[in-house]
Amino acid sequence: MTDQAHMRRAIELAARGRGTTSPNPVVGCVVLDAAGQVVGEGFHAYAGGPHAEVVALRAAGERARGGTAYVTLEPCDHTGRTGPCALALLEAGIARVVVAVRDPNPAAAGGADRLTRHGVAVTTGVLAEEAGRGNAEWLTSVRLGRPHVTWKYAATLDGRSAAADGTSQWITSPESRADVHRLRGEADAIIAGIGTVLADDARLTVRRPAADGAPAGVDSGLPDGAATARPLAQGAPATRPPLRVVVDSDARTPLTARVLDGRAPTLVAVADDADADALAAGAEVVRLARRRPYGLDLAGLLAELHRRQIVGVLLEGGPTLAGSFLKEGLIDRVVGYLAPALLGEGAAALGPAGAATIAETHRLEFEDVTPIGPDLRLTARPVPLKEL
Amino acid sequence: MTDQAHMRRAIELAARGRGTTSPNPVVGCVVLDAAGQVVGEGFHAYAGGPHAEVVALRAAGERARGGTAYVTLEPCDHTGRTGPCALALLEAGIARVVVAVRDPNPAAAGGADRLTRHGVAVTTGVLAEEAGRGNAEWLTSVRLGRPHVTWKYAATLDGRSAAADGTSQWITSPESRADVHRLRGEADAIIAGIGTVLADDARLTVRRPAADGAPAGVDSGLPDGAATARPLAQGAPATRPPLRVVVDSDARTPLTARVLDGRAPTLVAVADDADADALAAGAEVVRLARRRPYGLDLAGLLAELHRRQIVGVLLEGGPTLAGSFLKEGLIDRVVGYLAPALLGEGAAALGPAGAATIAETHRLEFEDVTPIGPDLRLTARPVPLKEL
Repeated sequence: MTDQAHMRRAIELAARGRGTTSPNPVVGCVVLDAAGQVVGEGFHAYAGGPHAEVVALRAAGERARGGTAYVTLEPCDHTGRTGPCALALLEAGIARVVVAVRDPNPAAAGGADRLTRHGVAVTTGVLAEEAGRGNAEWLTSVRLGRPHVTWKYAATLDGRSAAADGTSQWITSPESRADVHRLRGEADAIIAGIGTVLADDARLTVRRPAADGAPAGVDSGLPDGAATARPLAQGAPATRPPLRVVVDSDARTPLTARVLDGRAPTLVAVADDADADALAAGAEVVRLARRRPYGLDLAGLLAELHRRQIVGVLLEGGPTLAGSFLKEGLIDRVVGYLAPALLGEGAAALGPAGAATIAETHRLEFEDVTPIGPDLRLTARPVPLKEL
Repeated sequence: MTDQAHMRRAIELAARGRGTTSPNPVVGCVVLDAAGQVVGEGFHAYAGGPHAEVVALRAAGERARGGTAYVTLEPCDHTGRTGPCALALLEAGIARVVVAVRDPNPAAAGGADRLTRHGVAVTTGVLAEEAGRGNAEWLTSVRLGRPHVTWKYAATLDGRSAAADGTSQWITSPESRADVHRLRGEADAIIAGIGTVLADDARLTVRRPAADGAPAGVDSGLPDGAATARPLAQGAPATRPPLRVVVDSDARTPLTARVLDGRAPTLVAVADDADADALAAGAEVVRLARRRPYGLDLAGLLAELHRRQIVGVLLEGGPTLAGSFLKEGLIDRVVGYLAPALLGEGAAALGPAGAATIAETHRLEFEDVTPIGPDLRLTARPVPLKEL
């Protein structure tokens, strides 16, 4: 097997941590012995839990000596809640380390350098783009100093998210709606505008089979599915529910709104001159500057969320808020659920986004197209693609 | 190989006739000898040319005796420009005939009965749905007495076909635009509203590499690609260009419009009370009843096209005309070219279509999703699906 094949496996392992590692990155690791046999696999399952390298090295034990480690992200060189992974690799006697993505975090980087200084052969950049996509949230957070924003919408083929009479339930299928809850479960925060809260009394919580939410890990030396499916969740903290964020310039959120039902923490972003005294009794309120012609300082909102260690955000609309985010260049990924249906009238999925001419069109690139029940899920990213 | 595998091959062969057989159906045929070896293949290449069965039997020669014929459509039992295929199969000594779709055309049907009466084993309904999709235009024409209508649109992910300033060139890619010319080439008529003619001065002709347009056939007994790629087009008539149809209630088409440039025949549909004297000098004019709140009798237009042996129509919009067709249940297939782009404002791809509530949504079913350059081409059909 080639470096790429082993790294692809490490990327698969990393993906198992999606939704439970925040504010940490997802990381996967495959360890080979000196003869090139896989002797350990691991992934980072939750913040505070063992890093992927440590899990894989533990499984490999003495067989790691003289071997190779494939890691999706440069091994850390700092002591946080766990010791530096670069040191663990050295102590295990690993002779070669293959890295997909260099760590852009100045506090943690330097692992590759330390390994090189101690005579370990280090190769970087193997499947970097693929691994970077799997870590898009965390890399955006570290590089841009703000959360990664995924805008999710559901629409007909002609781009309508509601009928002319305002009804919007249900344009897409139960399968698509279940998939949205998966997306919510992977996010640290879910943002919606006051229009959506008032129109749909949206709850903005994650609803799905409970078994889905538990973090799991692997500590087996065997790469087969049965072993890697075994959970290693003893002592893992319960996943925190995503923060619910309502963008509500004039503090109109009713105290009886479901989004204030206490099932998950809620933050209401209001204008700095809004009368939010009543609201402050039932929710946490953050004040932001107003923006013309309407709306709030969204970059300021993301900065506030960044301070709270929010890494990945799911923006659920409505159209006006989504248009404002897009106009300000604050959307990193678009996930559209497209129903095989036509309306011909009714609210559009996206409102004004600063593109009045074809030349100003926000251009994207399709990253994935997947059937979800009778619908299609389209995933796209803005171009030119930001370096991840 | 199973019946299904041979029929699938026959369906592939039939598809080679797409765009050149109208007003005839596309038909493919595979002939096996008594031992089950493929000894002949054929398809119907152009109206007036030999039928698929005749092409395949000619290739098989004496080897057809005691063999099996797979035909995508029930062999005809009438003498048109060519003799009845049922007779040709009997004369060739075919022992078994496998049919995908029964012929709904009363004038031509009866082939299966004649074969059965003469001791030939007949199986029908093998891959009927798949074969029916390939013949959707012709089957709609025979069963409903009107042309099959494909609505084509191009839009951003949020369903916009033009920017707010009216610019629409180019939302989709050159690859998608080339694919539209392929669609046009398969149609007998291309319909557009006066709005599209005035806004874009659309020419509505087929523009593509000339080699693409020539009909081709196979007469080889060998199923390999090299042999079947050999053209059999000697004596085949030149493909007629699709009729251009402008829906123009008030006869506003300028005499200088490209759609009247004489490169292809053009029909302008006006209201029965429109002043179309000037227009009649430069185009053929057909008069139709007005419909409230706007527009013309579209079913009447399709009836007129049916009288002219128009089998497959490509409807290119604009949004108002497409909405009217949809509202009247006159759209049989939707082909959408979706650009990975977002506008947030500008004209919607589809105008009012009689669906003011979610319950009234026009429901479709995806039939195909194919990447075309950077875009996606979505093909969908209304549900409940009409029997084809």
